[in-house]
Amino acid sequence: MSKLVIVGTVAFDAIETPFGKTDKILGGAATFIGLAASQFKVDASIVSVVGGDFPQEYLDLLSDRNVDISGVEIVKDGKTFFWSGRYHNDMNSRDTLITELNTLADFNPVVPKNYKDAEIVMLGNLHPLVQASVLDQMTNKPKLAILDTMNFWMDSALEDLHNVIKRVDVITINDEEARQLTGEYSLVMAAKKIHEMGPKYVVIKKGEHGALLFNDDNVFYAPALPLKEVFDPTGAGDTFAGGFAGYIARTGDISFENMKNAVIYGSTLASFCVEKFGTERMQNLGTSEIQQRLKQFKNLTQFDIQLN
Amino acid sequence: MSKLVIVGTVAFDAIETPFGKTDKILGGAATFIGLAASQFKVDASIVSVVGGDFPQEYLDLLSDRNVDISGVEIVKDGKTFFWSGRYHNDMNSRDTLITELNTLADFNPVVPKNYKDAEIVMLGNLHPLVQASVLDQMTNKPKLAILDTMNFWMDSALEDLHNVIKRVDVITINDEEARQLTGEYSLVMAAKKIHEMGPKYVVIKKGEHGALLFNDDNVFYAPALPLKEVFDPTGAGDTFAGGFAGYIARTGDISFENMKNAVIYGSTLASFCVEKFGTERMQNLGTSEIQQRLKQFKNLTQFDIQLN
Repeated sequence: MSKLVIVGTVAFDAIETPFGKTDKILGGAATFIGLAASQFKVDASIVSVVGGDFPQEYLDLLSDRNVDISGVEIVKDGKTFFWSGRYHNDMNSRDTLITELNTLADFNPVVPKNYKDAEIVMLGNLHPLVQASVLDQMTNKPKLAILDTMNFWMDSALEDLHNVIKRVDVITINDEEARQLTGEYSLVMAAKKIHEMGPKYVVIKKGEHGALLFNDDNVFYAPALPLKEVFDPTGAGDTFAGGFAGYIARTGDISFENMKNAVIYGSTLASFCVEKFGTERMQNLGTSEIQQRLKQFKNLTQFDIQLN
Repeated sequence: MSKLVIVGTVAFDAIETPFGKTDKILGGAATFIGLAASQFKVDASIVSVVGGDFPQEYLDLLSDRNVDISGVEIVKDGKTFFWSGRYHNDMNSRDTLITELNTLADFNPVVPKNYKDAEIVMLGNLHPLVQASVLDQMTNKPKLAILDTMNFWMDSALEDLHNVIKRVDVITINDEEARQLTGEYSLVMAAKKIHEMGPKYVVIKKGEHGALLFNDDNVFYAPALPLKEVFDPTGAGDTFAGGFAGYIARTGDISFENMKNAVIYGSTLASFCVEKFGTERMQNLGTSEIQQRLKQFKNLTQFDIQLN
């Protein structure tokens, strides 16, 4: 089992969907990543920042699941990062209503001493300079560094983004962002160009259409489980990344074959995440449910054609 | 091996894509379906109509592949159905530039005597009354009747469409059309509503995102092969349907497990279809190429997670 360092936001979210709306609830990329990774009972540590307004119970929720939070800085007189958004009827697009950076504006990540030698590093969506700073603090080159990012950084910090992309092994990115980053419409061509930017493995997330894993000429396609209803997509991408990173940390195996499994685990956990608001479903998720859903994924994709 | 009756257009197409444009070339739903089904060396017959302007060599092309064309009526002093369209840069949407119904306007399908007892019937995209007329002519209830349709008939002949949907076992339809037909955004819910309209099996085609096969609570997901370049999507849906129907006719097995294979064969053949203009790629397609690509589909989707 490998140690896992996670950097990303720990935050408040307020969410509106066609099904309802929430007050300020627990959110943030690192939160979703940590909750997903904790399913694999790995030794994970979150590096983040919150304000004095952040409830202790939210932090307990992570540490109760053996996620180390010694790297979550608490700025007593500061306020926690707050995001509010409204999903459209198709649940695939959303409007950001509020973004208050608060303590995140001056965030200087500090990797806890015990985790500076972690083999797996998961750089959740944040400013690329913050992501790079975490890599700088690692004493050994990680066995696998995984980066998640979004179009916001392509628009506002493209050079910094390229510099950190260069340094990671895996990137997870959604389809439209892959197209924006490369100028290629074909995802095969986009993945090829991203390979050339550095990462050996490119994971393209396609929301309800699943995810693609590329490595040179190898491709693997994990569908999303077709759901009767997507209740709240918030955190699905982070949960996917957390499941991916957690499974890799658990197994310590970074072969392409094993990454296929990691992608399936990521998709499986993401399929739970969207069933309730925020982290609610991820807080109450048992091993047998996960096994049951993995079986659904097998039935969904496995076929038996004998080849000559 | 079962006999297969195919009804649909045999036509001229003129296509513009970002990669180029064609003059009037061979097209039509039944043409693509027939070419795909012929890969399975089944006893297939096309029921359609063309004008005196239709080249003999196009008809020979089908009969050379053992597709019976005795049910293709030739209206000597009529003109063949002609469609022209232009694809947008994303290749997922297109504008229709010209539709000349010509002989199709008065088409009265006549199923050849030898094929009135066919076990498998593939109703390609056409007016639902024409599709129903083919079912009326079958002497026995087919083992499997498959229907393909499109939004055009939902807009212009919804009641007739419902009447023929009621009579078939399988429907193939694209995602937007499934949503239009049912008013449900979730494809799981849409498939459920379509089940209630009659068909036990619902295949929802999602273009570059693959296809879903639903049967009660069973779901199967066949991805589309990620391609460097989609050259011309014309006929991909018909090729998918033809591969599906051809494989079922070949095996005579209408179990859900075997339909999974049929969907994979359909996706495999469609992945070739889009590589060149019109039917060009389907005219020159060898068994070993298909086997090779099926292997790619296996690698694309198969994973090895041991479940408890």
